[in-house]
Formats: sequence, C-alpha cells, structure tokens
Amino acid sequence: MESVMEKRIMWGDLDALGIVFYPRYYEWFDGSAHQFFEVIGIPHDRLWKDHGIVFGLAETQCRYLRAGRYHQRIKILTRLQNLNMRGLTLEHHIIGAEDGQSMIVGTEKRICMDAKNPLKLKVATIPEMVYQTLQKALADNPGTDAHDSSD
Amino acid sequence: MESVMEKRIMWGDLDALGIVFYPRYYEWFDGSAHQFFEVIGIPHDRLWKDHGIVFGLAETQCRYLRAGRYHQRIKILTRLQNLNMRGLTLEHHIIGAEDGQSMIVGTEKRICMDAKNPLKLKVATIPEMVYQTLQKALADNPGTDAHDSSD
Amino acid sequence: MESVMEKRIMWGDLDALGIVFYPRYYEWFDGSAHQFFEVIGIPHDRLWKDHGIVFGLAETQCRYLRAGRYHQRIKILTRLQNLNMRGLTLEHHIIGAEDGQSMIVGTEKRICMDAKNPLKLKVATIPEMVYQTLQKALADNPGTDAHDSSD
Amino acid sequence: MESVMEKRIMWGDLDALGIVFYPRYYEWFDGSAHQFFEVIGIPHDRLWKDHGIVFGLAETQCRYLRAGRYHQRIKILTRLQNLNMRGLTLEHHIIGAEDGQSMIVGTEKRICMDAKNPLKLKVATIPEMVYQTLQKALADNPGTDAHDSSD
Repeated sequence: MESVMEKRIMWGDLDALGIVFYPRYYEWFDGSAHQFFEVIGIPHDRLWKDHGIVFGLAETQCRYLRAGRYHQRIKILTRLQNLNMRGLTLEHHIIGAEDGQSMIVGTEKRICMDAKNPLKLKVATIPEMVYQTLQKALADNPGTDAHDSSD
Repeated sequence: MESVMEKRIMWGDLDALGIVFYPRYYEWFDGSAHQFFEVIGIPHDRLWKDHGIVFGLAETQCRYLRAGRYHQRIKILTRLQNLNMRGLTLEHHIIGAEDGQSMIVGTEKRICMDAKNPLKLKVATIPEMVYQTLQKALADNPGTDAHDSSD
Repeated sequence: MESVMEKRIMWGDLDALGIVFYPRYYEWFDGSAHQFFEVIGIPHDRLWKDHGIVFGLAETQCRYLRAGRYHQRIKILTRLQNLNMRGLTLEHHIIGAEDGQSMIVGTEKRICMDAKNPLKLKVATIPEMVYQTLQKALADNPGTDAHDSSD
Repeated sequence: MESVMEKRIMWGDLDALGIVFYPRYYEWFDGSAHQFFEVIGIPHDRLWKDHGIVFGLAETQCRYLRAGRYHQRIKILTRLQNLNMRGLTLEHHIIGAEDGQSMIVGTEKRICMDAKNPLKLKVATIPEMVYQTLQKALADNPGTDAHDSSD
C-alpha cells in the first residue's frame, strides 16, 4: 500500500535562497501520514474517537537530495516500512511530479499513544483491529516481503 | 561553544492535541543554527556575502522525548558535534527552561554550498578562515575532546 | 476572471481547539494570489525577471465566518477587485468544496514595487503591458462592470 | 495597559525576497494577544477551563509599512482598542527594537465564544468578571479616555 499526495510548492514555502524551507517537508510528511492512515481505513478521527489512540512521534529523519523550487509540482509517496506491537515506521518519498526525480526521503517513527486524556499521553499497545489493518497495508507494499518486522 | 536560544511555546505552535506540532521544532533548530553561526563570528550574511557560501541541509533528525505544551518556556542549546572539509553536524537540545528536563534532541547535517548563484547551488569546500573558526568552536565544546572528526 | 485553488485542511493547519489557526488562511490567500497572476498570464517569475517588479503587500484583511475543520476540502476563489496605476486589490473567498458554504472572505491590497534590488524595494508604476493584462482580467470578472476604479 | 513581546526575525520567517512572509506577522499578533490576556490576569487556560470561553477571531487586518529583514529585533506592542459585551478589538503595533520605527500596524477583532464543546463553538456574552478585567485594561491605556465603546 502506498498513498500519494500531490502538491505544488508555493511562494510561502520558500526561504530567502528561493528553495523550500526544510521544516515544510516535515509538514508535508505529517499531512501525508494522516492521508495514509485514512487510505488504509483507520483515519485519525476513528483512531482517536473509537480507539482512544494516536500515533505520536518518537523520531523523524529526512535527507535532502534536491532543492524544491517555486511552483514545482511534487508527489509525496508514503508507505509503511515497519510495524510492531507498539509502533510503526512510515517512509516518505518526495519526487518531482513531472520528472519523477527523487527530492526528499525521510521517515517518521510513530508510537501508539493512549490519548483518552490528551494532557497525559502515554505509550500503549496497538489495538488488535488496528494492528491487523496495518499488517495488511504492510503486506500490500509493492515489491516487499509481507513479513512484519519487530524493529 | 554552545549557543542558547530562549523561547516560549505559543498557541500557534500547538496541534489539535494541545502539543507542539513537530515541524516547529525543526524551525527552532534552524533559527538556533543561524544564531550559533553568528555567535561564533561567522553570521549568515558574512558567509553569503563575503564567502559566497551557505551551510545547506543534507540531513536532519530528531527524537521527541517529552511533548511541549502551551506557554512553556524552553531553551534550545546548539553546538557543533562534527566537522570536516565539506560540512558539519550541529547538535540541538531542547530543554524546559524551568525544570531543565530534556524535551527534544536532534541534529542537522549541513554541507558547504557555493551559493554565488542561488539557482545553481553546488557542493564546495569550507573556506580556510571559516574552517578555522569552526574548529575553534568545536575545541571549545564543554567536556569534549578537541579533535575534529572526519565523519 | 476568477482563479480556483483546491485544498484539503491538514492536521498541521489546526490549533489546539481543532480549528484552522488563522494565519494559515493568509498563507492560502498568498498562494492563491500567485496562482491568479499565473492564470492571467503574468506569473511571478515573469514579473520579477522580465519587468523587475513584484506586487508587494500594502494591506490585508480577513473575516472569519465559519471555522475550518480537519480534512475538510476547501476552495480558494480569487479575483481582481480593484486596479489602479500603482496597485490592485485581490478578493479571496474560501468556501467548503462540498457544501459551497462561505468560510472566509478577505482581501489583499498589493502595490507595484520595483524589486530590481530586493534590498531596496520601492513603489513603482505598473508597466503598461502588465496593466493591460490586469485590466482584461478585471473586465472578465463574472457579473461585474468592466471599469477599473481608481480606488 | 500595553503588553510588549520582543522577538528576533529568523531565517525561516523570510520569503524568497528576503523579507518577512506576511502571514508570520499574524502569527506574532496571535502570540502577543495570548500574552496580553495573560498579562492582564485572564490567561487563555483560565478563560477556557474556568469560564468555558475563548476569544475567537471575527476579523483581522494589517498594514505593512516597512519590510522586516533577517535577524532584525522587533517589538510587538498590544493593547485593547475596543470592548463591548460580546467582543473586543486588539491593536498590534510592530516596531524596530533599535530604531523604534513603525513596521506593521494591525487589529484583531475577537468575539467571545462558548467553547465548552469545541466542536460547537457559539457566540456568547463576556462573563462579568472577565469583562471587568478587560474594562480595567482599557482604562489603563496610555493617553486614552477610559470609556468602553459599544463598537
């Protein structure tokens, strides 16, 4: 399973060198992560309201291969790289929409948090139904073996 | 050498859970990196105008230890972790200003880019004078050996 | 002439109440303004590189009618409201993409700036060719008289 | 009563012309508004938790007098301009911290919203105790008559 988000780089995404200010890429990773959960059938609202959980951030990382420029069209490709009982890793890949060239690659390591009380977020085990949905998404990755890893 | 930036978390930094939206931490890393270069005597303006270089991003990474909350006072501590002829790694540490507890740790790997023509950024060697300044900042790290590593 | 930009509200656009943090609307106004100039045939790059001008901000204003929510699909409709020798006013209207209900209305009053030296921006007269393009866009507004006003 | 917030313009606040991307000013208005409420003794947390209200945005407006530049130190001065039973107007003034020159002037018209259920924000009357605090802040404005207006 791979979700795709299309976007166009805006003036306000640029820094004084005329290239994308790098925290923006993380904003798009986060937006694409939310879309990914929705596409596989466990949108944030359902996770939060039905299961009382969110997938909070443990660690993020990003490599910058080419600088994004004004009004360039890009695609953010997101898929599950890794899954275990307490969390998962999403892999994000930003490419030029026209030339398909790699621009950015990064990951978000997210952990399952009990968010019933948002003032006291705490680590939790992924609910069974949610876990199965994620496992299926992992198995559906193009060109990947269907084994979930234990990280 | 360690530079310190103080800040207060604002309403607009929060997400719908009432905790800091994570790309903001990277915005503060970047702001603190700029201050670091200024503090050690090679501010961005001088690097760009006098030497025709910028320290562009190659890779960033961040771990989230505790969630930042509304109106919390924080400190961003930044120092040079690593230096070689073509680039450097900055280490950022965000702590609560009152309790001193670790909130966020992260790094920015930056490479020296020839930016005389911002439309054609290309990798360059760090100018000698700039390199010496950085080497001195590395040597002045509290509790660190003064050897530059070649990464 | 009316340009339309479609967008989906993301998690990162929300504040701690779960509604859009209002400066985001201005980011979208700005993005839609850039698209508007492109659609009518005078994209930013051409204005800046060929004519040495930008349309800088003199004043912006916005009214909030309904709060934008998580993952809502919206449209930003932008058209020229007003034109004179030295500047123009853009009118932005954000509506729900599904229900068509008004969410946000606002304006940007922009003035023609000589930007040949970005360090010394100064007020300028709109170049003739650019003015004619704008006048045509104003005349093509749906349900509006084709007279440019002198503000 | 006037609250003052000091700030330094960061690299990430700039656009490709090297001047502040204008939605940032609104972010700082909002941050300064929150500080204002805190300074006069009715911080957001108390409004929300004790009184079940927030001061939501009805309208904002801003004029740009001078462009903010890299690493410039600024002050955001905020005071109450107007008060009635259902809302208030804050006036924000951004000046250079060194030269004192006006950079930005703007207003936020905020209305009292019942936020007990954030999913159903609705207009409300300002609670008596809160109103008195605001009235006192209005009376304490430097060089202003102490009458609240009914807008």
